[in-house]
Amino acid sequence: MGTVGTGVIRIVQDSADLLAARTGRPIAISAVSARTRNKDRGVDLTAYGWEDDPVALAKRGDVDVFVEVVGGSDGPAKAATEAALAAGKPVVTANKAMLAIHGQALAELAEANGAPLRFEAAVAGGIPCIKALTEGLAGNNITRVSGVMNGTCNYILTRMENSGLPYEDIFKEADALGYLEADPNLDVGGIDAGHKLAILSAIAFGTQVDFEGVQLQGIQEVSIDDIRRAGDMGYRIKLLGEARRTDAGIEQSMRPTLVPATSPLGQLEGGTNMVVIEGDAVGQIVLRGAGAGEGPTASAVMGDVADIARGLHIPPFGQPAASLAPATRAAAVTECAHYLRLALRDEPGALARVATVLGQAGISIDRMRQYDHPGTDAPVLIVTHPCAPAALAAALEGVTATGVVSGAPVALQIQTP
Amino acid sequence: MGTVGTGVIRIVQDSADLLAARTGRPIAISAVSARTRNKDRGVDLTAYGWEDDPVALAKRGDVDVFVEVVGGSDGPAKAATEAALAAGKPVVTANKAMLAIHGQALAELAEANGAPLRFEAAVAGGIPCIKALTEGLAGNNITRVSGVMNGTCNYILTRMENSGLPYEDIFKEADALGYLEADPNLDVGGIDAGHKLAILSAIAFGTQVDFEGVQLQGIQEVSIDDIRRAGDMGYRIKLLGEARRTDAGIEQSMRPTLVPATSPLGQLEGGTNMVVIEGDAVGQIVLRGAGAGEGPTASAVMGDVADIARGLHIPPFGQPAASLAPATRAAAVTECAHYLRLALRDEPGALARVATVLGQAGISIDRMRQYDHPGTDAPVLIVTHPCAPAALAAALEGVTATGVVSGAPVALQIQTP
Repeated sequence: MGTVGTGVIRIVQDSADLLAARTGRPIAISAVSARTRNKDRGVDLTAYGWEDDPVALAKRGDVDVFVEVVGGSDGPAKAATEAALAAGKPVVTANKAMLAIHGQALAELAEANGAPLRFEAAVAGGIPCIKALTEGLAGNNITRVSGVMNGTCNYILTRMENSGLPYEDIFKEADALGYLEADPNLDVGGIDAGHKLAILSAIAFGTQVDFEGVQLQGIQEVSIDDIRRAGDMGYRIKLLGEARRTDAGIEQSMRPTLVPATSPLGQLEGGTNMVVIEGDAVGQIVLRGAGAGEGPTASAVMGDVADIARGLHIPPFGQPAASLAPATRAAAVTECAHYLRLALRDEPGALARVATVLGQAGISIDRMRQYDHPGTDAPVLIVTHPCAPAALAAALEGVTATGVVSGAPVALQIQTP
Repeated sequence: MGTVGTGVIRIVQDSADLLAARTGRPIAISAVSARTRNKDRGVDLTAYGWEDDPVALAKRGDVDVFVEVVGGSDGPAKAATEAALAAGKPVVTANKAMLAIHGQALAELAEANGAPLRFEAAVAGGIPCIKALTEGLAGNNITRVSGVMNGTCNYILTRMENSGLPYEDIFKEADALGYLEADPNLDVGGIDAGHKLAILSAIAFGTQVDFEGVQLQGIQEVSIDDIRRAGDMGYRIKLLGEARRTDAGIEQSMRPTLVPATSPLGQLEGGTNMVVIEGDAVGQIVLRGAGAGEGPTASAVMGDVADIARGLHIPPFGQPAASLAPATRAAAVTECAHYLRLALRDEPGALARVATVLGQAGISIDRMRQYDHPGTDAPVLIVTHPCAPAALAAALEGVTATGVVSGAPVALQIQTP
C-alpha cells in the first residue's frame, strides 16, 4: 500500500467496468496489507479485508491473485510471494530486486505449483517491455537488449546538463525531492537498473537471471565537465544498459555511456525510460514511456492481473525454468569507442608517455585534446577507436602506473550503433 | 506464400528449437497454398502438403492454426479465414483491409466457434502494438492512439524532403522500387494506414471497427514547397493517424500533418513506423520499429502463433464482439492549428479579402506570409491558431467563394501535443 499499491487500488475502483469487459470477469480487491493501517492514502479501503502480515494476506482463502508491491529482494516481499506461490496462487510483482536475485528459484516454485508469476512492473514502469520480449517477439532470436531504465539517474544527468551544476548538488536536489531510494546507491550505483537489465537479459537469451554477471558502473564519477565535453562532440551521457548474446556468452553491462544526442536514447529527458530490443526477424524495436510513478507502474501491474484473469499462463521467464541454462558470462568483449578523461601532471613528456602506453596496449586514439589547466594537473580528453573494454581497462592500469596522471582515469563507453 | 509467408516459413524452419522451448510444443508447417506452386521462393517447401485452394488448406485435418497472409479485404483471404474459423481453427492474419472492413463479423464468427483470431501483423509490421494495447495496457482507459503506419508514404515524404524533387517524381521512383500496392491509392490515399488506425481505434475504445469513420486525406496534395515551408517553421510533414475519444464520440483521422521536427514522430525516416498510445494510468507509450518487410511482419505473425500455441485465448478486439458498441463518430472536432497554402490572384485587396473571410468565420491567424510570385498567382502561407477542422473547412469554402484564390486551398493540420 505504498505509491504503486495505491495506484492499483485506484484502477480497480475507477475502471471496474472496463476491467470486467476486457477480462470477462469482475476484478475486485479482497484484502490489503501494509505497515501502517491508519494512514490517509487517498483511496477508500474500508470495504476490504486487512492483514497486518503480508504472508497471511497471501494465504487468505478469498485471495485468487496476490499482488506484491512491497519491494526489497528479501524480507516480507519474498516471504509473501513464496507463500502465495506455494499455495498455487498467481503472483503479480513489481519487485526487480527480488526477481533479479531470486528469479530462478521463484520461477521454479511458481512452475512446480502451477501458478503464474508475472512482473511487467519490475522493468521500465509502464512500458510493456517484458510482454513484448516474452510474447510479441517470441519468434525472434534476440541478439541485444539495451536501454535507459532508471529515471532517477536520467533525471540527475539531465539536470546536471541543463543547470551546469555538479553531481553533488543535483544529487542533493534529487534526494530532497524524494527521488532516491532509501539506499541511494541502488539508483546512482546502477544496481536498480542492473536488476532490470538482468531480468530482460534472462528472458531475451533463455538463461537463468544473472545479476552478478552485470558489469556495473554508477554515475557518481560523471562530472559536469564530462557532460559538457560529450555534448561538444554531439553526445549525451546516459546510464545505459546493454545485454548482448556473443560467441563467448552473455555480456551484460549497466554504465554511463555516451550516446548520440540526436538518437532516440540521446533525446530521453528526466524520468522517461526506453527499452531497445533487437531480434533476427524484427530488427530493432524501441519502446518508450514513463519509468516509474503511481499510474504507470500500476498500469503494468494491472496488465499482468488482466492477463491472469484472462487465463494466460506461461512460464515466468518465457520458457520453463528447468530449461534456462546458467548464463555464460562474457564481460566486456564487445569492442566500442571510449571517452577517457585523465588529469595529467605538469611534467615534460607526460602526454607522450600516456600515448605510448595506450599504443603499446593496442589502443588506437581517435582524438586527443588537452585543456587549459589553472592548477597543476591538465585535464586531457581522449576518444579511442573501438577496442575491447577489458583491453582498455588493462591499458589504463598501465597509464596509472606511469605516475604521470593524478588519480584514476575516468573511462566511459561510447555506444556502438 | 508471398513475402510474409516466406518469412514465416523461414522462422519456423530456422528457429524450431527456440519456438518449441518457448511455447512448450513443436511448431511445424502442415501444408501451404499459393497462386503458383513452382516458383523459387528461397525456402524448401517439399516437406509440406500443398493445396491449390486456400479454403481447402484452411479445412485440412492436419492444420491446427491457419495463417492468412494473402491480403485483400475479400476474395480468397476472407473465404479461407471464414472456413478456418467456422471449423473452430485459430487464425493468424496480417490482413488489415479484411479486419478493417469485416472485423466485427469475423470476430463474431471466431467467438461463436471458440477460435482465436489474431492480427498483430496487420498493424505497424513488427511492432507489437496490438498486444500492447489489448493486453499490456488493459488497465487503462485509452484516450488517444496516434502514429505513422504507412512506410511507403513516409518514404515518399522523406525522399521529397531530402531530394527536393516533387511528389510526382518520387511517386514514380517508389513505384519502380516496388514499394507501392497494386492500387497505389491504398498507400498514398491513406487507405492502408486508415485501415490500421481503425483496427487500433476499435481495440482502444471498445467499439466496433469503423473504417468508414476515418477522415482520410492522402499525401498527393503535399507539395515540395509545403515540405520546405513546414521545415522553415520547425515542422516535418507526416501521414499521421489520430484516434481520440471525445465527449462527442470517436474521432479518427489519417492525414498529412505537421509535427515538430524534433519530436519522436518528426524524426521518423523512411519505412519506420511509430505508434503512440495514451492512457489514463500509463501516460504516453511510444512504440517504434519496422512497419513492413519479410522479417518484421513474419515476427508479428509468429508472435501470434506462439500465443496460440501457449493457449492464449482472448476476444479478437480485446473484449467480446457482442459488447463492442457501434462507434459514435465525432469527426474533426478536436481543435488544432492549421497550415494553409493559397494561390492568391494578383488583385488589389485580395489578401485582405481572405483575412476578412477567415476572421468572420472565427479563424484566428497566427502567422501569414506572402511569397514572391513569378506568375500571376502569389503563394500565401497562413498558420492559424487552434480551431476546429470542421470550422476551418467551412471557412475555406468562403475563401474560395471570394474568387480571389486560384484552385482549392491546401489545409494541413498541425499536430496538437
